[in-house]
Amino acid sequence: MAEKAARNKVEFRPHFKTHQSLEIGRWFKEFGVKKATVSSLKMASYFAQEWDDITVAFPANILEIDTINELASKIQLNLCVENLEVLLFLEKHLKSSLGVFLKVDIGYNRTGIKTSSIPLIDTLLSKIKENPKISFKGFLGHAGHAYNCRSKEAIEAVHQKSIDKIIALKKQYKPQHPDLIISIGDTPTCSVSENFNDIDEIRPGNFVYYDLTQNIIGSNEINEIAVAMACPIVSKHEDRNEIVIYGGGIHFSKDRVEDPNDGVIFGRIAESKGTLWGDPIDKMFLKSLSQEHGIVSVPKEKMKSFEIGSLLWVLPVHSCMTADLMKKIHTPNGGVINMM
Amino acid sequence: MAEKAARNKVEFRPHFKTHQSLEIGRWFKEFGVKKATVSSLKMASYFAQEWDDITVAFPANILEIDTINELASKIQLNLCVENLEVLLFLEKHLKSSLGVFLKVDIGYNRTGIKTSSIPLIDTLLSKIKENPKISFKGFLGHAGHAYNCRSKEAIEAVHQKSIDKIIALKKQYKPQHPDLIISIGDTPTCSVSENFNDIDEIRPGNFVYYDLTQNIIGSNEINEIAVAMACPIVSKHEDRNEIVIYGGGIHFSKDRVEDPNDGVIFGRIAESKGTLWGDPIDKMFLKSLSQEHGIVSVPKEKMKSFEIGSLLWVLPVHSCMTADLMKKIHTPNGGVINMM
Repeated sequence: MAEKAARNKVEFRPHFKTHQSLEIGRWFKEFGVKKATVSSLKMASYFAQEWDDITVAFPANILEIDTINELASKIQLNLCVENLEVLLFLEKHLKSSLGVFLKVDIGYNRTGIKTSSIPLIDTLLSKIKENPKISFKGFLGHAGHAYNCRSKEAIEAVHQKSIDKIIALKKQYKPQHPDLIISIGDTPTCSVSENFNDIDEIRPGNFVYYDLTQNIIGSNEINEIAVAMACPIVSKHEDRNEIVIYGGGIHFSKDRVEDPNDGVIFGRIAESKGTLWGDPIDKMFLKSLSQEHGIVSVPKEKMKSFEIGSLLWVLPVHSCMTADLMKKIHTPNGGVINMM
Repeated sequence: MAEKAARNKVEFRPHFKTHQSLEIGRWFKEFGVKKATVSSLKMASYFAQEWDDITVAFPANILEIDTINELASKIQLNLCVENLEVLLFLEKHLKSSLGVFLKVDIGYNRTGIKTSSIPLIDTLLSKIKENPKISFKGFLGHAGHAYNCRSKEAIEAVHQKSIDKIIALKKQYKPQHPDLIISIGDTPTCSVSENFNDIDEIRPGNFVYYDLTQNIIGSNEINEIAVAMACPIVSKHEDRNEIVIYGGGIHFSKDRVEDPNDGVIFGRIAESKGTLWGDPIDKMFLKSLSQEHGIVSVPKEKMKSFEIGSLLWVLPVHSCMTADLMKKIHTPNGGVINMM
């Protein structure tokens, strides 16, 4: 991803919400990365130990003004703003200098100002201009609707439509704001596309591990998934070809994905290969999760090859959520990577 | 629930996986409760600080033998066993005295020995008898399929069918094992039924808070839900009648429920009432969750009554999962209840 960013001359500001780890953050530094994205002020405070330019890619929460002030006094903190209320609040309560991105909606319809809402954008920009502590960074978008895609072609189409919207804003506002940047960055489009003309910054994050959802979308091959959960087998039910593992909703989260062959799944089982996993096993997947239980559907002919007390490798549906729950990563050489 | 147990002359061994709190556990002691249920050995270790008789209602995980031995040396620890492999392992590695329930499948088809598998039950019982460190406690079942019900009548029907299966085992094995007990206990059946003839112990847990799922099942009234999440409003989108809150999958988990009126929901919004919440607001619910974002569907005429920076009260779909993620409970008088 660092190479792709360099090749396309865009700044690489990876999202760290997936790994939430200072140690993994240092791997990015080795690739020349100097700026980070996070999804909460709590995460920003954690990474501020080693990073001095952080964007919180979440609508600014004014109830956390104390943390905003504290962080803004220490690092280059950038927040996302999409309404006047937040700017009016910051006018009264902001104590240090802050970067502000205007969050725009490039098609996902989750958050952000519509790119056609020029009067609102103008109002916000003039309010920003009045506040000497706030510098306007640019427009930030997130094509989260790329997660609905199921092919590289579909991702490319969503990407093109999304960047068209935000690039139009760049053209309109660049004359008055020559330093403004256009920041985009979901993992599907950043994984698949090579089209970053007029884009200044990308913020993908999930690609650090990838997962089954990204694989089904078309972002990655299944053997590019870099994290799996090792779950103890606690029970076998030969009559219904099921294995019960110690691994449930409190470990994986309850994120699900619709697999084109197997329907709704909560994880997929991979072969064991020494201290790591190998290829996924056909027709073997997590079919349901309770709080601590995971129910694995097993091909009949495979039932005999799994023993109670051994470990099953489970590829996660959503690695961000699973990592957030586990808070610790084991490496194949016996090391441990700590998280936030 | 304590009163119901007393009235029906069954032992009350509440499940503590919902609250995971020593402090809340003490409230149960005030009602004369002396025994607890948990869902993991980690949780058993935590509660062993104040409880000396704990059942882990999860198939024994032999990879945790060190914790089993440590706990069994300190408290009356009871595990669930449903296969010979675990007993053969315990024969070699168990160092202290342990209670064992045979986990039987009373219709949920998740874990447990089929109640018709008499040869397997006999084999396990004779293996238990050979091991002087293991005492047979009885048969334990969980009618998790009660969660598929949508009325009190349906819950009663599931309950009757489930207890018929486990009571048949009691009749068969009581002559040789006069002290065996029959332990059941999901929150729906324990909330709804008054039929506990021939049952010796109940283990409901979720009722300590209840939640939207239990309400839709028919276990509780909506105003009996005893926990809610206060989430900051970070954005409003009047064009689509949506509010964005700071409250996503890492706070609520991604558990969902099919509401009879509103389809799949991830939470429901209640009115604000001082430092607490009041009635749920009609047609106002969490329609989707990302990692940190929650998208709230709002009745058009209500949009103006919510302001950015104020808090929305969200009733959770699954209080066990939400509490597990939040790890702390705030009380209306400003106190804090700590969890595991």
